Amino acid sequence: MSLLDTTLAAIQPVSAEALAAAEERQNQLTKPPGSLGHLETVGNRLAAIAGVCPPPIPEPAVIGLFAGDHGVCAQGVSPWPQEVTVQMMLNIGAGGAAINALARQAGATVWVTNVGVANDAPEHPAIRNRRVRPGTADFTEGPAMTLDEARAAVEVGIETALEAIDGGAKCLLTGEMGIGNTTPSSALISVFTGTGTGAATVTGRGAGADDEMLNRKVDVIERGIALHRPDSTDALGTVAAIGGLEQAAIAGFILGAASRRVPVILDGVIACSAACVAVAFNDDVRGYLVSGHAGAEPGIQAAVTHLGLRPLVDLGLRLGEGSGAAVALPMVQAAARILSEMATFASAGVSEG
Amino acid sequence: MSLLDTTLAAIQPVSAEALAAAEERQNQLTKPPGSLGHLETVGNRLAAIAGVCPPPIPEPAVIGLFAGDHGVCAQGVSPWPQEVTVQMMLNIGAGGAAINALARQAGATVWVTNVGVANDAPEHPAIRNRRVRPGTADFTEGPAMTLDEARAAVEVGIETALEAIDGGAKCLLTGEMGIGNTTPSSALISVFTGTGTGAATVTGRGAGADDEMLNRKVDVIERGIALHRPDSTDALGTVAAIGGLEQAAIAGFILGAASRRVPVILDGVIACSAACVAVAFNDDVRGYLVSGHAGAEPGIQAAVTHLGLRPLVDLGLRLGEGSGAAVALPMVQAAARILSEMATFASAGVSEG
Repeated sequence: MSLLDTTLAAIQPVSAEALAAAEERQNQLTKPPGSLGHLETVGNRLAAIAGVCPPPIPEPAVIGLFAGDHGVCAQGVSPWPQEVTVQMMLNIGAGGAAINALARQAGATVWVTNVGVANDAPEHPAIRNRRVRPGTADFTEGPAMTLDEARAAVEVGIETALEAIDGGAKCLLTGEMGIGNTTPSSALISVFTGTGTGAATVTGRGAGADDEMLNRKVDVIERGIALHRPDSTDALGTVAAIGGLEQAAIAGFILGAASRRVPVILDGVIACSAACVAVAFNDDVRGYLVSGHAGAEPGIQAAVTHLGLRPLVDLGLRLGEGSGAAVALPMVQAAARILSEMATFASAGVSEG
Repeated sequence: MSLLDTTLAAIQPVSAEALAAAEERQNQLTKPPGSLGHLETVGNRLAAIAGVCPPPIPEPAVIGLFAGDHGVCAQGVSPWPQEVTVQMMLNIGAGGAAINALARQAGATVWVTNVGVANDAPEHPAIRNRRVRPGTADFTEGPAMTLDEARAAVEVGIETALEAIDGGAKCLLTGEMGIGNTTPSSALISVFTGTGTGAATVTGRGAGADDEMLNRKVDVIERGIALHRPDSTDALGTVAAIGGLEQAAIAGFILGAASRRVPVILDGVIACSAACVAVAFNDDVRGYLVSGHAGAEPGIQAAVTHLGLRPLVDLGLRLGEGSGAAVALPMVQAAARILSEMATFASAGVSEG
């Protein structure tokens, strides 16, 4: 069997027993029932993932950041030149990007993987070179990549997750860099959420599209979907036809985490589209996901609804890189601490209401 | 001059020059302009507070948690018995409450001060005993406390802030514990925001009021305001008439921070009401405030609008203690890191859009 097949076979549903135990424990802790809001639901989910209540604190954490380019940029879907992908990948490798500052604050480690940047990049000790191909093809003219390439990109993500977990990571966060990558992400979300009324409702301005460019993005996505007619039950075929290399890698990163019962914090629209791919591979993956950030892209809302998630924060971020996952990480860790560190009414001698 | 007077005299406006420098720097950093959303506005505010760009990372942080009781509990405004205030104060001192777990996650220290708990509490090394009086009087029958008591409580807060800052704190967070304390907080917010249509729009369920109790809270607040007719330009007189000892202390804590150019992260409705008191003492205090959490209490929205703030998160918390400030602290620190640690387009050799 391939790494993808063995990974899919290893994924188990999260534990209903541990979830029930966590829900019961929340009501014994010294606070009004439900008064910690969404922190309680996240803590309960961590118990379900770990299969034990209280769950361990999910640390240390690794941000798997995958960089790729997109042939569909030829259609004019981003105000940024494609060379920025490799420039920013190097900036992230050097520690100068927003995700580096946010990761340092959260105590997380950034792993940068070149899974498909178009331009040749110099070797850099902080960048894992696992390039499957130099950017995708323009999906308005043909498939973004072959099925074999898509599988290879997914397996880069799986291998990255397993290596991080073997190295001690107890929480994985998704990150990405790729000029133009909100376009394939909105295309994927449109297909997987069954957006009946066209792509406009799940397509946003990415890193700065104006009205004309936004309309072009919608048109490009609708032409791509019309050309390939992707089958939403065919995860690999869909990501190959209209997706991207970093979306495929992130899907694999999520699958790898789920196969080891490790929680994954999703960033924004690219992560959400990759999570839709991962869930199409195996529906049990849902239980391992935590949504970090709501964000400005309309596709996020459609995707998190599809995935049954509720984002932890909405700071109006529209950067990607993993920024929305990184700011959410301390909250996810706090949610576990609540269950493991708080006194109960009985243990603290506090009267109940 | 009293400590309150010298503190008020020491408060300066935040720096417009440092704010402008931060706004300019945000656009030079390697990210699309504005793409870090509210993190950018908070970072810019930190620069204005510090008077320098980039601002220092606001750490270490101290959570000033003030405990008090409320005579208005005699009117049946909380489902919890008043003895819970002292029980929870001791639980917090022992490290077993939600705020302790959240503070550990955020790397903050909790300072617990008894500024006015009704029941006698045993001495405890983790609890500062600065009790001004054993709970307030019922403000539906007379003033909650005298002007001298209110000033003493404000000065407990100022002294706590100055002691924390002298000990190295670079960021202060507000916290509280007091059964029934959403009622005086909503009363204060109603007065300071000039809620014309009555108290109902700024009054919520606190730690679990049902419909009948909520209606009673509104009635109690309206009767208190009708009895005392507080003057919203008289900060001390208003907090004495319808406030609480912990609200007065938090107001002082905020004033102390502002007098030393230290940012203050506000928790929920009790903190917001105290911030309204502090701003009524000195309008320049506004610039030193960061709103941590939106929360379930309707008074928060009215207060943050009055204060010109936007909460960082909304996790549906309705606990108090400082919980909403503690979860926001890593984001505030991240906002400073963005300005101090990110590369610029020029320094990283990244093309601009």
